[in-house]
Amino acid sequence: MKQSSGKGLISFAGGMPNNDLFPVKQIDKIYNSLSDDTKKLCFQYGPTTGYPPLIRSLQKMMLKKGLPAKTDKILVTTGSLQAISIITQEFVNEGDIILTENPCFVGALSVFETYRAKIIGIPIDEEGIDIDALRKVISTLKRPPKFLYITPNFHNPAGILYTEKRRRALLETLSGTDIILIEDDAYGDLYFDVNDKPLTRPLKSYHAYDVEIIYTGSFSKILGPGFRLGYMLSSPEIFEKAETIKQALDACTSNFMQILAQHFIDEGYLTPYLDFLRKEYSERKEILQRSLEEHLPDGIRWIEPKGGFYIWLRLPNELSASAIFKDCLEKGVVFVAGKTFDPENEEDHNLRLSFSNMPKKEIEKGVVLLSKVIKNHLKVSMLYDTNT
Amino acid sequence: MKQSSGKGLISFAGGMPNNDLFPVKQIDKIYNSLSDDTKKLCFQYGPTTGYPPLIRSLQKMMLKKGLPAKTDKILVTTGSLQAISIITQEFVNEGDIILTENPCFVGALSVFETYRAKIIGIPIDEEGIDIDALRKVISTLKRPPKFLYITPNFHNPAGILYTEKRRRALLETLSGTDIILIEDDAYGDLYFDVNDKPLTRPLKSYHAYDVEIIYTGSFSKILGPGFRLGYMLSSPEIFEKAETIKQALDACTSNFMQILAQHFIDEGYLTPYLDFLRKEYSERKEILQRSLEEHLPDGIRWIEPKGGFYIWLRLPNELSASAIFKDCLEKGVVFVAGKTFDPENEEDHNLRLSFSNMPKKEIEKGVVLLSKVIKNHLKVSMLYDTNT
Repeated sequence: MKQSSGKGLISFAGGMPNNDLFPVKQIDKIYNSLSDDTKKLCFQYGPTTGYPPLIRSLQKMMLKKGLPAKTDKILVTTGSLQAISIITQEFVNEGDIILTENPCFVGALSVFETYRAKIIGIPIDEEGIDIDALRKVISTLKRPPKFLYITPNFHNPAGILYTEKRRRALLETLSGTDIILIEDDAYGDLYFDVNDKPLTRPLKSYHAYDVEIIYTGSFSKILGPGFRLGYMLSSPEIFEKAETIKQALDACTSNFMQILAQHFIDEGYLTPYLDFLRKEYSERKEILQRSLEEHLPDGIRWIEPKGGFYIWLRLPNELSASAIFKDCLEKGVVFVAGKTFDPENEEDHNLRLSFSNMPKKEIEKGVVLLSKVIKNHLKVSMLYDTNT
Repeated sequence: MKQSSGKGLISFAGGMPNNDLFPVKQIDKIYNSLSDDTKKLCFQYGPTTGYPPLIRSLQKMMLKKGLPAKTDKILVTTGSLQAISIITQEFVNEGDIILTENPCFVGALSVFETYRAKIIGIPIDEEGIDIDALRKVISTLKRPPKFLYITPNFHNPAGILYTEKRRRALLETLSGTDIILIEDDAYGDLYFDVNDKPLTRPLKSYHAYDVEIIYTGSFSKILGPGFRLGYMLSSPEIFEKAETIKQALDACTSNFMQILAQHFIDEGYLTPYLDFLRKEYSERKEILQRSLEEHLPDGIRWIEPKGGFYIWLRLPNELSASAIFKDCLEKGVVFVAGKTFDPENEEDHNLRLSFSNMPKKEIEKGVVLLSKVIKNHLKVSMLYDTNT
């Protein structure tokens, strides 16, 4: 596997932004225009809940999305993963049940596993979580689950965007169940077509008063993961306990990173940067989409994403994503096999292609290599079919 | 209490560096000399265990202190509090016993309480933890404690420096008990007299092979708390589990902050900055020490610190630190009452004066106010004595 760590490797694996897309120049400008007093604040401890001017900026952004950011409270965290970790520590004891989508963001799964929760994955289709399956699970469980964790906007790994109908059906289903909904919105701002923006409206903005929703967000996709900045919006009761947990986890989030992020928003850099990102990711998606259409053999299905970082391929049942991964690695192209995102670690017929970290000119080359490997596996499987 | 939040308040309360002492200009220089590629790295995810060049710099620093940084492993954390939190999550279940010093760093106490440990505080004297008391507690416990948490260098709040004899006696006491020692060395570099440097030698460098020691450190006191950077050094086994926990807590520590810290060390800024800090803190300590000698009434005892941030006053038994705190707040001077640092939250005859965040010219003024309040309390207590 001489290519596996070499420069020649084409990687659809990483769910991170490409280094060349970061707003380095904007942050340079911001940093160098900070007053001496503000710079000193960068070096100092801040409040556990977050740097107050950043909280105010987040509040404004949330109000624009229809979120109840005046009545509910914002906690700044070191990434949305810390928010998920705090929520889990707040609600989950060993053996408690957590519902997730299947497939599910692997970072969240690893948090839930660390707290020794029992995870039950509910299938999703192109419109969102399978409501019938969810109802069935809820009705058969003897102990109620502590929460349901979902990523309705440009799902990682499945790339889907929940329809409005499905959002409403989900809220109806949760109504009166006491199951808290964790709504992870790390990708919501990264729609490709501005006409789709209304479709990204958070469930927490639907005013479903009898469903408790904790909304989480992140700067990792709209500024840079290196800032380690995220946030959660929750009821004051949940917020207060979360603050105590945050205090014991790391006292507070870096003032330095919060101050740069706050200036990035308030000095008007975020809006044009998001436009830039949408265009860049949209172009990458287009190239990947066209390449897949051109080179993949029949029988491979996927849903063209309307935003985010990922295309999720569904292989025919006779093919194994793990086996294809091994051969692809030999040929110099990698992705993440679907098993990773299955709470049961079983489902082996999917693969996640991330286009976010991919130089445009390499995309088609990667798809050609991938397609060849898949075609070989199809041939072998047909031979096997003939022989049996 | 009109002065309690106003600018006129003289505060011996905060255990943080003064804003005016931060190396703002040095970090400015470093930031603006980073290459474009390094800046891009600042924005990106990094390895869970830490930014490799920072780990190498930490390793060098640790080897100079005699620490086994070649065989043991370094994990970078968001402050030493996160290291303590990770260690607690790794070893402690609800109801497990943790031994601490009494008094003890309140941040650690709040972590241990969050994980619902049973905390037993062991008294300390001017040479370190009380070995007889420790032996007695260990011998009477039915279940062995999970670990002992100590701050041997310039203790927070007590300001003491463990003697070498006490360090050795502690290691002998722990030998063969399976009690892990957590050695928190947040202040070790802040000795006032270079001749005392050898006295700060970490217990983990004593090569006590049958005592498991986890060593923690921080950038909060030698660069800035706003960076949220700390680290732990432990055996590979403890490190591996800690890495998994860190992964689920926040994926990784900010690359941005790690890269600035690494350049701060490697470009030679740390060493002169430490000299500067030692001088500044030493001067503040001198002023506070002389002011206390001059103004405090007889009967108040303290040990002149050899480094760190704190002077710990012991009141006569008839005085209450909480009551003095209330009156001091009215007069416009604050400190932290000793109860805060007592795991039982009872001992009310001590107060912690922090000189780290104190402008030099305010120190004596604060001591005069404090002394007046204490003298008043002494008078009242003598009156009370006469009447009974």
